[in-house]
Amino acid sequence: MPNTNRQWKLAARPSGLITPDVLQLSESPIPTIQEGQALARVKYLSIDPTMRIWMIDMPQYMPPVKIGEVMRAFGLAEVVESRHPDYKKGDKVSGLTGLQDFVVIDGKETRSFQKIPNIPFVSDTNFLNILGINGLTAYFGLLEIGKPQPGETLVVSAAAGATGSIAGQLGKIHGCRVVGIAGTDEKCTWIKDELGFDAAINYKHPDWKAQLLSATPKGVDINFENVGGEIMQAVLDRMNLHGRVVLCGLISSYTKQDPGLASFGQLIIKRLRVEGFLCIDYFSRFMEAGKQLGMWKMTGKLKDRQTLVKGLENAPDAINMLFRGDNIGKLIVEP
Amino acid sequence: MPNTNRQWKLAARPSGLITPDVLQLSESPIPTIQEGQALARVKYLSIDPTMRIWMIDMPQYMPPVKIGEVMRAFGLAEVVESRHPDYKKGDKVSGLTGLQDFVVIDGKETRSFQKIPNIPFVSDTNFLNILGINGLTAYFGLLEIGKPQPGETLVVSAAAGATGSIAGQLGKIHGCRVVGIAGTDEKCTWIKDELGFDAAINYKHPDWKAQLLSATPKGVDINFENVGGEIMQAVLDRMNLHGRVVLCGLISSYTKQDPGLASFGQLIIKRLRVEGFLCIDYFSRFMEAGKQLGMWKMTGKLKDRQTLVKGLENAPDAINMLFRGDNIGKLIVEP
Repeated sequence: MPNTNRQWKLAARPSGLITPDVLQLSESPIPTIQEGQALARVKYLSIDPTMRIWMIDMPQYMPPVKIGEVMRAFGLAEVVESRHPDYKKGDKVSGLTGLQDFVVIDGKETRSFQKIPNIPFVSDTNFLNILGINGLTAYFGLLEIGKPQPGETLVVSAAAGATGSIAGQLGKIHGCRVVGIAGTDEKCTWIKDELGFDAAINYKHPDWKAQLLSATPKGVDINFENVGGEIMQAVLDRMNLHGRVVLCGLISSYTKQDPGLASFGQLIIKRLRVEGFLCIDYFSRFMEAGKQLGMWKMTGKLKDRQTLVKGLENAPDAINMLFRGDNIGKLIVEP
Repeated sequence: MPNTNRQWKLAARPSGLITPDVLQLSESPIPTIQEGQALARVKYLSIDPTMRIWMIDMPQYMPPVKIGEVMRAFGLAEVVESRHPDYKKGDKVSGLTGLQDFVVIDGKETRSFQKIPNIPFVSDTNFLNILGINGLTAYFGLLEIGKPQPGETLVVSAAAGATGSIAGQLGKIHGCRVVGIAGTDEKCTWIKDELGFDAAINYKHPDWKAQLLSATPKGVDINFENVGGEIMQAVLDRMNLHGRVVLCGLISSYTKQDPGLASFGQLIIKRLRVEGFLCIDYFSRFMEAGKQLGMWKMTGKLKDRQTLVKGLENAPDAINMLFRGDNIGKLIVEP
């Protein structure tokens, strides 16, 4: 066990990708815990596009990270010492650990840390994807906003990402024709051959819009949108009457000017519903969703993949990997 | 009674406002009716922004008007001769009369023509606004998509227009704080002093965005959007968590390039729902809505105003009046 706590602190607000001035690595002694606290060592860090949003000073769904604060991140940690009645050494917990080696759990923050059970066929890191924020996001977004019906066509963008890959598989479970859009042939092969998507389109191929057309012969009923911009526009152009756009993310706009939407009129003509959401709005139903997602994982109906980056020192570049599309499946940093 | 039938036919597809080459006035004998037909004389023509959409050759909710066809328009007509069992001379009907002096009603088209009853405090032209397409659009859009709750704040754009003025009054009936956005001080005075809006903002005043801010101290829960572009963007910026955008029209984009939306990300952060709709989707509930709207009209809870243009020859310019914002309330041409 190391004898210091490394922490990535927000030093400056980014304007594009994460440059070296944005996050600063500091080292301090491992915190000493008080009565009512537990100390946990971070084992896995979830690297998510939303971290880029937390870094900027604009109104958002959580307070932006302040300059000087440890960068916020979801993670999985193991209790190494406890003076808290609810946690004992060896307990695994998930929650907002932050980009650091050690996290102190106290009464105040307890709510954010869930103890992780042992479930067959479910790995620890599955609590950061299928049974974590990505699974919950895909579940509530697709089911509550997309409302998939058997035989409908679902298009998922960033389909080989942590959330998109689950959303597409949930679409298959619900009887949809599922088309994924991703940025490399390798990603396309994975979602089609391993995850069972009906079609996969590499948007970096010059004829990808023609491919989208032929992959959606009956149009598109649901767009599970993670990207925005040109990709979203192309899918909107294929949407059927009364289609639903599950607005989950707009990763194309997080590191550069929001491209917006050029053509909005078809929302009326086609009576489309575009709805933004966050899984935290469904907090009271997390147990229900977790049980269902866990069951699908155990029975092999939900598969996952991860891209593991070793070393806490590589966390800033790992965030950039998301925006460069370098990850397949869940992107995780192992400190 | 004239002895010819003047008809405005679509001669060319417009690219901006209606130029003289777009609609061509022709004159032909008054149609002779056959068994099973009735002849009606058009008394009032409803001038609506959607006519501009019907003129262009793009996928839409009805087939575009073909070159050479009589321009489609809603209107109110009086039967002058009948060989149809359901219509007798003197009956008043509303439906898609077209931009012409006379319309032939036959079995095939009967469905589009509704007989108009005599109701106290309801004028004939009320069947083109409150009890016509505008009232139904405001009713279903606000109630079904906006889902107003007492105490919520509703912002209506094009608030002095035929649909917007009704949507705002329906918001008041449902206990909302209602703020209207319009383009002249006269319009603002009308919606505030006559229709009972809580605030009215002239978007041509340089400080209109600051006015919007102070008129919506608790933010905006529902945006009944008729305009799009910069106005919609400003209202989006004021929206509260879980706000609803009733996407009714985007008149700012009908005669020029759709400005789109610059910033889309707040749809996620604020979990907004943006939903396009057309009142025809609620066809089976027109009777319910009509009764309710009629009741509110009779009891003085819904007020209206019209801008009347005399002479069928002025119909093309009347359409342009909509895009110049020259009308207050319902714009009607009396042939």
